[in-house]
Amino acid sequence: MRCFTQSDLSSLDRLFRINLINGLSGYKSANLIGTISEEGNENVAVFSSVIHLGSDPPILGFIHRPIEAGGNTYENIRQTGFYTINHLSMDIVADGHHTSAKYERDVSEFEMTRLKSEYLGDFVAPFVIQAPIKIAMKYVEEHSITLNGTILMVGEIVSVFLEDHLLDADGFVDLSKANVVAVNGPDGYALPKLEKRYPFEHPKTDKEQDQ
Amino acid sequence: MRCFTQSDLSSLDRLFRINLINGLSGYKSANLIGTISEEGNENVAVFSSVIHLGSDPPILGFIHRPIEAGGNTYENIRQTGFYTINHLSMDIVADGHHTSAKYERDVSEFEMTRLKSEYLGDFVAPFVIQAPIKIAMKYVEEHSITLNGTILMVGEIVSVFLEDHLLDADGFVDLSKANVVAVNGPDGYALPKLEKRYPFEHPKTDKEQDQ
Repeated sequence: MRCFTQSDLSSLDRLFRINLINGLSGYKSANLIGTISEEGNENVAVFSSVIHLGSDPPILGFIHRPIEAGGNTYENIRQTGFYTINHLSMDIVADGHHTSAKYERDVSEFEMTRLKSEYLGDFVAPFVIQAPIKIAMKYVEEHSITLNGTILMVGEIVSVFLEDHLLDADGFVDLSKANVVAVNGPDGYALPKLEKRYPFEHPKTDKEQDQ
Repeated sequence: MRCFTQSDLSSLDRLFRINLINGLSGYKSANLIGTISEEGNENVAVFSSVIHLGSDPPILGFIHRPIEAGGNTYENIRQTGFYTINHLSMDIVADGHHTSAKYERDVSEFEMTRLKSEYLGDFVAPFVIQAPIKIAMKYVEEHSITLNGTILMVGEIVSVFLEDHLLDADGFVDLSKANVVAVNGPDGYALPKLEKRYPFEHPKTDKEQDQ
């Protein structure tokens, strides 16, 4: 086994450390967050930090870089109160990754990639047409991490759109049927295949203990 | 496309809603968190919410259920200040999932499964021998989500142990080489295969725009 102590980590070359530390949480979700500014400028950006926070009420979170570091997503969400989360599938991964480039505020990534925006119902923020799963989100609260200023953004699910064939009879969403990708490290995209669902677990009895 | 409005979601059967909402964040990381109580009782539990929060200093977060809902992981971390994060690989996924069963406080999941604990250096919390990546963590701060009481636990990486062959020359950790799994929904385990790493993205020039 290779070992890195805390002092090893702090003395690593910057890029090596970014690659290493970004891989240590395990696989990450791959989503495009769609927003619009008060002036009507659309924005879409790739995030690998969307997480489940609760199912009743249905809440998702994601991590935004510190405000000082910029990023239109945070600004737009605070202006309008709404955003969309769109799953990144293998078909659109190159365009999705490109949204990480730093464009000027008035340039829409929808113009600079093959990703297309769409508006569903009366929801204010743009969805990504090509995404197999699209979620309308309402901003609820945020928490700033003292240690580095990153922000946990918390939102409530307003509505969900997903391709019919992804939904099993019991509500399970089979992501692999839509070729949804997972993120490995800062820049690796992996394609998962569902291996198995496990039942709800109960404590083992004495008899079962060694099985 | 299938659509669920906010009122559809709130009127769903409980289990259907849990399955559906748990699948909406995308793929989740699969980790075993190892802790020990002041009295020396070991605990290991599966979590699908470990996230990257920053690489300098190196910080990871994870979501813990509300304190009222119990769980030894939170209690042990607050008692000792330390914990371990261990990656779940395909080999140990059944035992890893079983740690979600509700055992009494004095029963160790290390006794009830084939998972084995080990202690590395002078670090107080137990690691999982079989895990291909093991991380020693120091508790730093926590944030309670107002909407449902779940807690974002924030910790700093103290040291990292990983199988040599997983580490690329530039620090990239290739999770698929260790058969690390990703979680789909509340109970699905998927095996990802790395497809491609993408370069750091720069804004397109006018010429490139339609490519």
